[in-house]
This record gives sequence, structure tokens and C-alpha cells, in this order.
Amino acid sequence: MAEEAIVARRRLEVALARIRPADMDLESAARARLDDLTKPRGSLGRLEDVATALYVMAGGVTPLRVDPVRFFTVAADHGVAAEGVSAYAQDVTRQMVHNFLSGGAAINVLCRTFGIGLQVVDAGCRGGAFAAHPMLIDRRLGDGTANMAAGPAMTEEVCARGLLAGMELAAEAVSAGARCLGIGEMGIGNTTAASALFAAWLKLSPERLTGPGTGLNAEGVRRKTTVIARALEVNAGALQSGDPIRVLAALGGFEIVVMAGVALGAANCRVPCLIDGFIAQSAWLAALKLCPAVRTYTLVAHVSAEPGSAALLPAFETRPLFDLGMRLGEGTGAALAVPLLRAAAALFNDMATFSGADVSGRLYAAGAPEGARP
Amino acid sequence: MAEEAIVARRRLEVALARIRPADMDLESAARARLDDLTKPRGSLGRLEDVATALYVMAGGVTPLRVDPVRFFTVAADHGVAAEGVSAYAQDVTRQMVHNFLSGGAAINVLCRTFGIGLQVVDAGCRGGAFAAHPMLIDRRLGDGTANMAAGPAMTEEVCARGLLAGMELAAEAVSAGARCLGIGEMGIGNTTAASALFAAWLKLSPERLTGPGTGLNAEGVRRKTTVIARALEVNAGALQSGDPIRVLAALGGFEIVVMAGVALGAANCRVPCLIDGFIAQSAWLAALKLCPAVRTYTLVAHVSAEPGSAALLPAFETRPLFDLGMRLGEGTGAALAVPLLRAAAALFNDMATFSGADVSGRLYAAGAPEGARP
Repeated sequence: MAEEAIVARRRLEVALARIRPADMDLESAARARLDDLTKPRGSLGRLEDVATALYVMAGGVTPLRVDPVRFFTVAADHGVAAEGVSAYAQDVTRQMVHNFLSGGAAINVLCRTFGIGLQVVDAGCRGGAFAAHPMLIDRRLGDGTANMAAGPAMTEEVCARGLLAGMELAAEAVSAGARCLGIGEMGIGNTTAASALFAAWLKLSPERLTGPGTGLNAEGVRRKTTVIARALEVNAGALQSGDPIRVLAALGGFEIVVMAGVALGAANCRVPCLIDGFIAQSAWLAALKLCPAVRTYTLVAHVSAEPGSAALLPAFETRPLFDLGMRLGEGTGAALAVPLLRAAAALFNDMATFSGADVSGRLYAAGAPEGARP
Repeated sequence: MAEEAIVARRRLEVALARIRPADMDLESAARARLDDLTKPRGSLGRLEDVATALYVMAGGVTPLRVDPVRFFTVAADHGVAAEGVSAYAQDVTRQMVHNFLSGGAAINVLCRTFGIGLQVVDAGCRGGAFAAHPMLIDRRLGDGTANMAAGPAMTEEVCARGLLAGMELAAEAVSAGARCLGIGEMGIGNTTAASALFAAWLKLSPERLTGPGTGLNAEGVRRKTTVIARALEVNAGALQSGDPIRVLAALGGFEIVVMAGVALGAANCRVPCLIDGFIAQSAWLAALKLCPAVRTYTLVAHVSAEPGSAALLPAFETRPLFDLGMRLGEGTGAALAVPLLRAAAALFNDMATFSGADVSGRLYAAGAPEGARP
């Protein structure tokens, strides 16, 4: 077993070493193009930032393309649920996977509305494998994680294998034509795991990250906070090691690990990856810890209404695109960002330019002061 | 002339008297439906508010429909531009209309990206009527307004006729099948007119509403502020009358008047109307002053980056949907809200319900505490 763990980690290290950051020097070319479009400079706000990011991720190849878009909704169960950290029974994870497969969940509706290809990944729901289904991908890492409040949630080997599996999912999607990926999740108990990861990596207290917004009453919140503090204590050795894989194995979830792998894989394939809410953001942070270059290929879609979210914003560097008070998960927030990416790409590609032959003159003086608007 | 003015006002009063507010009692039925969808209660955040608003506007008729969507980008010129309140020449209004008609502006790209029908309305650009074009609607109220810093921008009669013209545009669009309207604008000098209207109606000082974000340097901002203060002084009689038509005629613009008419017409036809940024919001405020019921049929899309916007938020009651730092106008912010409306309608219509036969059990306990999320 120890040898298998070494092999898995070695494979992961090789894969991570291949990831190159996007060339940020391309930003100036993107900005020059945006300033040549028939509008006051900078007047498209964040859409100009998104277009710039897409241009950089595309390596300066135009026209910018976002479609086809492929989303992964990754589901798994959490041993820590046994501590009573959720208002819901663990069965709900499995039932929601059935809901995804029958097309009735929020993420299904949004993916249909916006023309997003959706795959549901079973990363380790309790109760064994699901029957085969065209939308389902089986990447089970176990029958739910172990209880992180009593020890590591999973072994380092399983963690490394899960990350590699996520990277391969991304690679397969890109091979099949996808130009943009997105990650979301389902897993009863996973705000507890995500909060623990944030606490460990951002040096935030469990108290700041755990709130009544999860639907627990005051007693439930106290219990959840205590459970997270216990998990941090029990896994202190892993945390002190500073080794991202050990930390992720100790406190993570199977869906978090696979989502982190997809974000790493998107960077490896040089395509943008949209990050959903609180839990997907913990996966994103794990990916950043493993490979900082991931940042140059990811866009954080939205601010979750999960109360701990506010504490994360300073660590994000780039503000998420919007805040609609959503806290559903599944990838729903990331799905809503897809039209923004399409808009940014289309504006970049298709607007008339001052320098183009199709516009008679300089409508807005390109040399006018920043922010000029009549 | 005086008699024509009386006739126009009388026609307008009759039209306004026909507008009925949406039945807000329908909200509870919408909320009950949303709570029966397979998700934690309230977890779709603002999308649930939007779905509720659409349900109320639809009079409780389901499925909710947003498409076809029709946008009006209304252009006109402003006499006050002669005071040097803009960094740009007045010709830019006309040149941008040509850019709209040739499909190269930001609003064209967004309408194509999102499948929105676009019509460009000439409400009174300087230089006479444009040549006929399939996308263009001629509703010219004059060859630009008069200088509001020297007297009323237009007569009350012209103002009343412009409002009626906007109402008719909305009615024609709805007759042609539109289920959702949107308003945006183009007009050099129109943040000056909009700021003056906000100052008059919201009792805000011109200093709070006028800022360097318009691209003017410190001297330019001072000049613009002085011009607005002068317009408020010169038109003090109209402002003190408290008559919304007199105020709008004194300080408005032709595009602002027509947009206000479209918002009124949307309410009259019981369809939602998306309100764009700073200037469209001044038109929305004019419509609210004329007929408070308009609020029940309008959705404010976004917070403009125009510095005065922050001062308006408390008066809006409902927070705009997003803030992407945009300040382009044309209807671009409203266009970005269209996918959100489609998403809200689709989630409301198509998600599996706890009570529906297609879901085996109560996945999330509908009776769980508000905010419950694993």
C-alpha cells in the first residue's frame, strides 16, 4: 500500500509539473483590442476583464471561443455527516444524484437553458455504484469518506488518485471539443469539509467560517464549529506538514478532490474553468495550493450566500463576477456565469473597431480620458 | 398650441389611468411553488425573487415565458451639450446610431448573442431624420432638445407626445408577440439630463450626482455641476409645481421621455420591462412619478459605474440584479440580465417538485429551517 501511495503521488507530481501558467504578457494586446472597440474605454467593466482573461487563456488566438461548455457536477458522501453537522440525512446525496440523472434538478434546468453539456460524477456516494446512465461518470474513490473529526478523511493515495481522475476528466472533455469547463457539487456535509479546508489554508477560525446560514440552529452551529475544530486538531500533523495533498486528504471530500483535479486539468489543457460557490471554491483553493498557475485558467463565478464566503473574499485576489445570494451548489452559480463569458467573447470578437473599415470615424475619441462617458 | 398641449396631456392622462398594478397577492403562490422545487428553500437567492416577479407580472399564468424579448435603444441629442458638459462632440450621437444600424455596437453584439430583438428609436438626433432602415423607428420629437440651463428642454406637449409614443412602441411590440421589453439609450449630454432629474426628484445635490467618472477633469466636473445647478434654478417653477410632466419637460431628454413611455407601456401591457443603467433609470423614475404601478412591471438590471449611481440605490427599494462596473449605456446592462430572467423562468417552470410524481421522496425537507444547506 505504501508503495502504491508513492506511485500515485509520483504520477500526480509529474502531471502537475506539466502545467504552465498562461502568458500574462498577452493582457496588453487584449486591452489594446478592447480600447479599439467603438465604446468609451473601460465602459464594459468586468466584461473587459473576462474578455482579457479569455484572450490570455487562449494564448492570444482569436476569435475567442467559449463553446462547447462542459460542466461536471461531482457528488460524494462525507463520514463527518455522522457528527450531525447537517440538517439533512446523508441519503439526500444519493437521491439528488438520481434527480440529476432524471433531469429535474436546478443544474439540469440551467444547463438546458444555456446549452451547457452536463456530466454527473459519482466520486463516492454511500450505497455503492449507481446503475449505468449516459450522463453518469463513475470515479468512485470509496463509499463516502472517513470521519475527519476522528482522523484523515481519506488516504493520500486516494487523494492523489482522485486528483488525477479529475485531471483526466478535464482532458477527455477537451479532447471531445470542450472549450470551457465548470465545476459544482453535491454532498451532504460538504460545507463542513470546505470550511475545515478554508480554516486550515487561510488561517481563519472555524467560528468565522461556520454560521447559521446553513440552516442549523444556534446549537447546531456550535456543534458544527466544534466538529471542525476537532478535525483540525486530530489532523494537526497533516496541517503542520504544509503538504497540500496531506491537508486535502485529511479534511477534504471525494467531490472536492475530483473538482480540484478538474481545475488542474483545465489549466493543463489551457481552457477556462468556471468555479461555483463555497465548496467548489475550496476545491479551487486546493488546486491553487498544488499549482498556483491554476489561477490563470480559472474564473470564480459568484459569491455564495454561505456566511463564511465573506471571509474568503480577501484571499481570492479577483472578485467573483456576481452575487445573487445563491447557496444551492451543483454548479448553478457557475452556469449563470456562462452567458457572461459568451457575451465577453462576442464583444471582443464582433464589435466594430475604430480602426476597422466599417466605421467611418472615431466615434468616441480613443485618446479621451479614462472613464469618458457623456 | 396651448390647446394641442391640453389635448396631448389629456390623452396621456387617459392612457396612464388605464395602467393597473400587478396583483402582489400572487407572490405567495409563487413562493409556495418555489418552495416545492427540489432544492433547499430560498437557495436560488435573487433568482427566486425574479421568478416571483415574473409570476406576478404574468398574472399567475404558467409556464412563465420571457421570449421573445424586444429591446429599444433610444437616441436623441441634448441642447445642454452646448454648455460643454461632455468630453465628446454631439455628432457622436448620430454616428453611434449609424453604428447601431450597421450592427457593430456593443448592444448589437449582445442582442445577437442572447437572441434579443433590437429596435433603434430616433427620438430626436440632431441633423434631421435618418434614411429608412429596417431596425430604425422614427419617433423624432425635434432636432435635439433646447438647452435646459436656459429654460425647459422641451414643451409639456412634446413631453406628453413622447410618453405616448413610447407607450405605443411597447404596445406594438407586445402585439407582435414580445413577452419582455428592455430600454437603453444613446445621447451625448444625457448623464447631465439624468443627473438633473435625479437631483430634482430625489432631493440630491448636483455635487453628489456629478463625478469625475464621466471622464471630465476636475474643471469639467465643476462646470457640469454648475450647469445642472443652473438648470434646476432656471426651471424652479416647473420643479416646484410637483407636476412630473413639467419636471420631465424641463430637465429631460427626448430619449428619456420615450424610454419612460416604453416602461409605462410595458406596465399597461402587463409585460416585464428591463431597465438599463443611469440614464434609463432616470426614465424609470419619471415613469414611477407618473404612475407608481410601473414598479410592479419593471426590473432594474444593474448598477451603473456612473458615480452618481451609489446615491440612487436607497431610492430604488429593490437592489439592481448585478454590478459589473459597466457604464456604456445602449441597453447593454439590461441585455446581460436577459439570461437571468430566462434562468429564473426555466427553474420555476421545469425543476422537479417534491410533490411531483417524478421525485420519489422529499429530498430536502421542505419544512427544514430557512437557509438549510448541508
